[in-house]
Amino acid sequence: MNRQWLIDGQPRGRAMRESDFKEQSIELAPLGADCARVKVEVLGFDPSMKGQMENIGYAAATSQGDVMGANGIGEVVESNDPGLKVGDKVTGRLCWQEYATVRARDVQTVPNDDLLTARLGPLGGTGLTAYFGLLRHGRPQPGDTLVVSGAAGATGSIVGQLGRLAGCRVIGIAGGEKKCRWLVDELQYNGAIDYKNELLKVRLKELCPGGVDVFFDNVGGAILNDVLARIALGARVVVCGGISRYEAEDLPAGPANYMNLVFQRATMAGFLVTDYASEFSRAHRRLEAWLRSGELQYREDVQEGFENIPATLLRLFSGKNFGKQLLRL
Amino acid sequence: MNRQWLIDGQPRGRAMRESDFKEQSIELAPLGADCARVKVEVLGFDPSMKGQMENIGYAAATSQGDVMGANGIGEVVESNDPGLKVGDKVTGRLCWQEYATVRARDVQTVPNDDLLTARLGPLGGTGLTAYFGLLRHGRPQPGDTLVVSGAAGATGSIVGQLGRLAGCRVIGIAGGEKKCRWLVDELQYNGAIDYKNELLKVRLKELCPGGVDVFFDNVGGAILNDVLARIALGARVVVCGGISRYEAEDLPAGPANYMNLVFQRATMAGFLVTDYASEFSRAHRRLEAWLRSGELQYREDVQEGFENIPATLLRLFSGKNFGKQLLRL
Repeated sequence: MNRQWLIDGQPRGRAMRESDFKEQSIELAPLGADCARVKVEVLGFDPSMKGQMENIGYAAATSQGDVMGANGIGEVVESNDPGLKVGDKVTGRLCWQEYATVRARDVQTVPNDDLLTARLGPLGGTGLTAYFGLLRHGRPQPGDTLVVSGAAGATGSIVGQLGRLAGCRVIGIAGGEKKCRWLVDELQYNGAIDYKNELLKVRLKELCPGGVDVFFDNVGGAILNDVLARIALGARVVVCGGISRYEAEDLPAGPANYMNLVFQRATMAGFLVTDYASEFSRAHRRLEAWLRSGELQYREDVQEGFENIPATLLRLFSGKNFGKQLLRL
Repeated sequence: MNRQWLIDGQPRGRAMRESDFKEQSIELAPLGADCARVKVEVLGFDPSMKGQMENIGYAAATSQGDVMGANGIGEVVESNDPGLKVGDKVTGRLCWQEYATVRARDVQTVPNDDLLTARLGPLGGTGLTAYFGLLRHGRPQPGDTLVVSGAAGATGSIVGQLGRLAGCRVIGIAGGEKKCRWLVDELQYNGAIDYKNELLKVRLKELCPGGVDVFFDNVGGAILNDVLARIALGARVVVCGGISRYEAEDLPAGPANYMNLVFQRATMAGFLVTDYASEFSRAHRRLEAWLRSGELQYREDVQEGFENIPATLLRLFSGKNFGKQLLRL
């Protein structure tokens, strides 16, 4: 039997609920020619999964009744595909289920080493998003002040460290003292703002006296607006995500301070990491080297159990996760 | 005697009123060494004059009690400055008054030809704003669809025509049938949308089936938001002004659809024309050549009389002006 979670709701314009998914168990079909069966071991979670369900522009749109899409890591347990052999660890779009049927071209075989699960985080789409978003669109320069929102999140934490490697002063915005302490003590950010317990406007002024040269935004809403009020001349605002918007019933207002782009001759740009596919392998090699040398650190938040998959996705939207959200089946 | 209009109110966060200005008459002081006296003949008006009064980021901030700042054209009527002689026509920051006392370095001597008043419009800051904003930040390419808001305004009308010269399909958004007809019949725009009498969203969809590659925005508010919903892949949104915001009591919300910058990998940028000062003379020569050949057309809205100066500024904010707003003293 194969247990699966199907999409059973459309969360467009409202918060997601566990009831947007329903479980089913189906017979495993006999394995076709050129196919392999993968036992799913770990799943990765990402705020854009809500965007996919809403079909609001991300690539991998999904519909009601589909097995919920997700990247994962698994082990090949049966194979008719000469490109995959039993025991191989693979990563790819394995979805919310116990067994995925794949072809070699759909997945990537990865070494079963201590960076195995990192391939869903800093060595996966998350790390690549941080890399291309910051380096191509933020264009950090030594001496720049870089502000990152969602700074303790999977993407934000890599962005801040890449900014440090690029010679920036890095200020992170995160929710809670524990996350902020991690940013400063472990990741060597130059400062952190706990937006839940501190006054963002006041602290931004204190920590960014010369203004914000690069803002990498994962959050949107009031945070984006307050940072726009403090951008420096020629600032680059990189719009990566807007997790503050995902829980809203109505589409929330945009940033009223956007006109400051004029006075500061600044740029606000969006991007999708998929555009850089031709450069992934080089970026990947660099990220892996930094991870192995300890120049890049990361954290994983690992939940457990097939039955907890929907609840684990919801953790992202209330900021409960600390580090890359994973679940081990 | 010299009649002047002084700033007597702070319109920050509210609509401007005629009572934000008060008239005074003062004795003309004897002319100093190295100075010249200019009789002001024509004044130019611009939405950013409200921004200047609010000190919200534009260069030439002004304060209560100052003579209101403005560019103008006048004639030298008395001179102790060897660089200026009686009868010269000059342009510069002459302000809301009958006589300005200037030095040669503060003003530019201009030929007394049929383009005299154009030096306050298409050959002044207005034309240069259109030129650098569109060509440097919009980066129009042949085949692009360019949308301009405030398209019949002084800046917008030049932007659309420059876009036509660059090989774009040009769609203008303006208020009223008369302005829209002018855009299509005279300026050869490919289409116009009367946002006061047509459904902007519907018409944008009809007129821009492939999306909007370049949006040059003078208006902000709902217009910016609706165009953001229709940007094409890799679009460039140029934020030039936000006249819809100038009349608001509270700072209006920003564009809720800004997240579409992500899905379309698009850029929204602001600029100030003063950054391009080193290239003004070349741009000026090109603009003048296009005006003389008829490839660029422009329109002036000329009011009359010193006493009508404040009311003339207010015309801009209700869209009463049709063409560059001028006043002849």
